[in-house]
Amino acid sequence: MQITKPTLFLDEQICRRNIERMRAKMAGQQINFRPHFKTHQSRQIGEWFRNDSIETITVSSLGMAEYFANAGWSDITVAFPVNILEHTLINRLGSHIRLNLLAEDPEVIRKLDGLLNTDVGLYLKIDTGTHRTGLSPDAHDDISRCIESLSGARHLRWKGFLAHAGHTYAVRRDTVALSDIYRKAIDSLNLLRDKFRQDGSELQISFGDTPGASMLDKISGIDEMRPGNFVFYDLMQVQIGSCALEDIAVALVCPVVATHFGRNELVLYGGGIHLSKDHLVSGNGAVSFGSVCKFDGARFDTGMIYGELRSLSQEHGVMRISSTEAHALRAGDLVAVLPVHSCMTAQCMGSYTGSAGQTYDHYAGAGRA
Amino acid sequence: MQITKPTLFLDEQICRRNIERMRAKMAGQQINFRPHFKTHQSRQIGEWFRNDSIETITVSSLGMAEYFANAGWSDITVAFPVNILEHTLINRLGSHIRLNLLAEDPEVIRKLDGLLNTDVGLYLKIDTGTHRTGLSPDAHDDISRCIESLSGARHLRWKGFLAHAGHTYAVRRDTVALSDIYRKAIDSLNLLRDKFRQDGSELQISFGDTPGASMLDKISGIDEMRPGNFVFYDLMQVQIGSCALEDIAVALVCPVVATHFGRNELVLYGGGIHLSKDHLVSGNGAVSFGSVCKFDGARFDTGMIYGELRSLSQEHGVMRISSTEAHALRAGDLVAVLPVHSCMTAQCMGSYTGSAGQTYDHYAGAGRA
Repeated sequence: MQITKPTLFLDEQICRRNIERMRAKMAGQQINFRPHFKTHQSRQIGEWFRNDSIETITVSSLGMAEYFANAGWSDITVAFPVNILEHTLINRLGSHIRLNLLAEDPEVIRKLDGLLNTDVGLYLKIDTGTHRTGLSPDAHDDISRCIESLSGARHLRWKGFLAHAGHTYAVRRDTVALSDIYRKAIDSLNLLRDKFRQDGSELQISFGDTPGASMLDKISGIDEMRPGNFVFYDLMQVQIGSCALEDIAVALVCPVVATHFGRNELVLYGGGIHLSKDHLVSGNGAVSFGSVCKFDGARFDTGMIYGELRSLSQEHGVMRISSTEAHALRAGDLVAVLPVHSCMTAQCMGSYTGSAGQTYDHYAGAGRA
Repeated sequence: MQITKPTLFLDEQICRRNIERMRAKMAGQQINFRPHFKTHQSRQIGEWFRNDSIETITVSSLGMAEYFANAGWSDITVAFPVNILEHTLINRLGSHIRLNLLAEDPEVIRKLDGLLNTDVGLYLKIDTGTHRTGLSPDAHDDISRCIESLSGARHLRWKGFLAHAGHTYAVRRDTVALSDIYRKAIDSLNLLRDKFRQDGSELQISFGDTPGASMLDKISGIDEMRPGNFVFYDLMQVQIGSCALEDIAVALVCPVVATHFGRNELVLYGGGIHLSKDHLVSGNGAVSFGSVCKFDGARFDTGMIYGELRSLSQEHGVMRISSTEAHALRAGDLVAVLPVHSCMTAQCMGSYTGSAGQTYDHYAGAGRA
């Protein structure tokens, strides 16, 4: 394998270990595992889940749903407020897979139902604390109006309540705080289920996020979990406490292009268009756009960190040196950058390379030359 | 034209006006105009420059150089520290176009020359204050060593000194501060030219950035300018003072997917994978990932701003409402987001759509389905 420019390297062994660990954990709790494929967006990585007996998945766009439907997945939830402008694609997908959508507005539910010519599942999106999308669990009148719209629907089938525990991302290595977020959120979802359960209906509760799914030993009161990031993990998840550094399954391999040892810096060919501009702020206020570690041509080594990326331009990454070993690096050497946010880095890169030089597709790069 | 999902909309009229204004300004100063094509990365938009008699261009990667060489451009500077690992591509390009590269390290210059089988131009990269890459203008010994390496080179032809005035991006509507940055930087480059000029050699000084090229009336002491962002401009350039809001030539058209009027927010289908995570911080500390304005199906209207994007997830954008007109918006309506950093948004999107529904290519999406 000859790497000459920024290349997203995937360690298959770590990735498969992350998948198997999460599958076993969900199975042990009798929770349906519906992994969020927006992190990897790869039909080949999807196969590793399928080989692990997973049949239900989550995606974040209708286009991504079609990509995975074409790869043979037939039970897909699009965990994003339904975009009614894409009704043609919704009907196409709904006619040959089990498709579930999200809504939170009675008007949207009525309009959508009017545009459908095939049956589609629908979850009501509940905001359990993230305050991005969803109905407040206290907004019983609004929830009732949505349920009324669903009662009269021709093609929409009400599945239950769905929430994203996005506010767990603010937790830092604190399972007590995490448990508390889970307990409150899951209690509020169960109260809604009890209140709005109709005769003969079986309402599902779909929940989840990577921090909770990774850090909590016991989870109850929900039917399914939808973590996504755990497949690769990243520096943000290390900071939260979801994983260890050695659980990170992807790294951006970059050529060194300039050395400024006088100011303790290296310049990498690898910038915002490769990593995304997501960054972490550590306790002392230092900003990092990625941790730079050793790459030996076949593996990246999280045990040998050279320094942190302190700034990113469009194609440049500037690394502040934190280890004496970095002084041996020269322009033309390859290093690996552990990403702050692996979902975004994978999206930027649009494909993966494995240790034997094999490549794996990504939806964003599907069909790209 | 039917837009159903996030789509990067290009106003050709504004874009052509930006190009012509900058061309005329450079011509008026007798400065060679070598626009940086990393902003648009489009062969069709490149033609608008060619129709305006531009023949020399700048790009930020060797791959981008090849894309434009295939589109007929034959004088290209890659304004990035040369990545010697890509020597095969350098030789392929160098054999049929006039290719200029950058270096700042005598060892890199010797290695590169040893790998070449065709003549290539080389600029010494000088750091006039940005502190990202380049040799300090005071580091005369280091500069001498680079020139010695170039003297003995078989295939590298020394072209002169090149600098990027990236520190102008810290200026806010202050042409005096900007003039001062220019004067110091250009003086230091001229001192280097005077000191290191060799018999019979004609050393060029290549400089530039969008803020200086846009805001300064008179620029002297340089041979060429390489601004890039001016082709589209963006909110960052408005904040710096390089342009007015109505000079912005691209906007991301997004469907509204949820309304939360109770907390004065809208949710758009349009997130970090579409806009990038670049953001601005205004004087009062408010963060913006983009300004949301009206879109009438054929044009975006910078005169009707609905609010600012206060946060971005992978696919969601959350807008804080600042105008009463926004209360009329409903899920399924289209709005347009003026980007904070147009280069990054164009890179994320990988293509453009014009007002008549025509599309324009982008290097990042070239060959994409």
